[in-house]
Amino acid sequence: MDKTQDSKPWSVRDLIPENHPRRESLLIREKLVEAMEKSILVPQGLIAHGRGECFDYLIGEKTQSFAEKAIEVAAAMLLLAKSPVISVNGNMAALVPEDLVKLAEEANAKLEVNLFYREVKRERAIAEVLYKANAKEVLGVGEDASATIPELFSERRRVSPRGIYIADVVLLGLEDGDRTEALVKMGKKVIAIDLNPLSRTSRTATVTIIDNITRAIPKLVLKVRELKSKSRQDLIQIVSNYDNRKIIAEALRYISERLNQLSLSL
Amino acid sequence: MDKTQDSKPWSVRDLIPENHPRRESLLIREKLVEAMEKSILVPQGLIAHGRGECFDYLIGEKTQSFAEKAIEVAAAMLLLAKSPVISVNGNMAALVPEDLVKLAEEANAKLEVNLFYREVKRERAIAEVLYKANAKEVLGVGEDASATIPELFSERRRVSPRGIYIADVVLLGLEDGDRTEALVKMGKKVIAIDLNPLSRTSRTATVTIIDNITRAIPKLVLKVRELKSKSRQDLIQIVSNYDNRKIIAEALRYISERLNQLSLSL
Repeated sequence: MDKTQDSKPWSVRDLIPENHPRRESLLIREKLVEAMEKSILVPQGLIAHGRGECFDYLIGEKTQSFAEKAIEVAAAMLLLAKSPVISVNGNMAALVPEDLVKLAEEANAKLEVNLFYREVKRERAIAEVLYKANAKEVLGVGEDASATIPELFSERRRVSPRGIYIADVVLLGLEDGDRTEALVKMGKKVIAIDLNPLSRTSRTATVTIIDNITRAIPKLVLKVRELKSKSRQDLIQIVSNYDNRKIIAEALRYISERLNQLSLSL
Repeated sequence: MDKTQDSKPWSVRDLIPENHPRRESLLIREKLVEAMEKSILVPQGLIAHGRGECFDYLIGEKTQSFAEKAIEVAAAMLLLAKSPVISVNGNMAALVPEDLVKLAEEANAKLEVNLFYREVKRERAIAEVLYKANAKEVLGVGEDASATIPELFSERRRVSPRGIYIADVVLLGLEDGDRTEALVKMGKKVIAIDLNPLSRTSRTATVTIIDNITRAIPKLVLKVRELKSKSRQDLIQIVSNYDNRKIIAEALRYISERLNQLSLSL
């Protein structure tokens, strides 16, 4: 055990006992810490993950019905889109690179690296992860992010002129509220995967999937595959009756009731 | 703005616009990221902070009455203790070093570095932060952490034989559930500061202060100062009627009602 005094203990998986009740959650954290060490994730991405962990805990760490409904509408919306784009940040690349590439293929969507803290080194690291997962093309790296989103500051406004800039539907996860608002103001439909039902991104998006990206993206892949056989009319039907505020309200009520039950059982 | 392409953008405070609605929260994050770069905090500490941020948001980012009550009992318990110890981890050292030293002075308590991921380098970095904040003595560094807590694995069980090992009251923040349970099994009274009312630490501790450490520790200092003039009998009175389960249930109900109200206002 002396080696833990010299080497970095947080890269030593053996340090977490097999019988630790939060072992799974701790191992996902290790994955993110490793991603940070490879420049895929900034430290702030770890904080954002922690916030998500809390909400995931509150929804019971399962895909609930409010998320299932949003996933169906999101799948139909992606299939109806002319130029759908999947916006990829460090957390998504660290946790679900293969599923993102599968989703891009199934939905005929483009993949674009889009970071709150832009840095060419990190853009390249994320693109590399996606190429390793068999991505055909990754937009938004270096000079490709040459178009600008109105009303945003500094590096945050830069996007690809072939990707997010001309997209009609943008799927994103763990996004900054300012940026989501700016995309919606540009007239784009935004599908957000966000565990926090109260975030500005959740409340601004066209469709909010309140679920963990590690569960939501694989489910979205399956749903897109399933809906491909539907007619355009059927897809429009699915999308047209959707009310995102109802979904968010349902998530809040779910958590509220769960906490109330727990308070009674103490 | 070109420098953001070369230097680390996350150390450039100017990158966060003055008008960003989450600016305060983002600046606290910067403080923690800097602490990580100085080896005071491990990356996992950032994730833990993120989880805390979420719960803080849910309690309205204010010290609520359930926390005020727990703070009063905690202050009385510290004053009644024979050998009180304040267990300090990376997050506490990064955010409230001066207040921890003040609390140790007011409550005549010892300060001990106690880490989930033990590493001598980090123990020393934390002790240094506390000494800079005028701590007289810091236990738990290097060879001083030579006693072991039963039923815990590897480095997590090591504590100081002059500190936590012989303490009757231990105050801790953001602690691992296993360790809190082990301390309680040793017969110690544990005061936990934890924003998550559902964590094992919260449910196992003798007194749980469900509040942000940046608010709770300064309030605890004031309360200890105030209660010093009370008689031993008065202090026993304060402690004796306390029911921690009620406090946790109150916190859960508070969050539950708040989310329910929010769901209705959508």
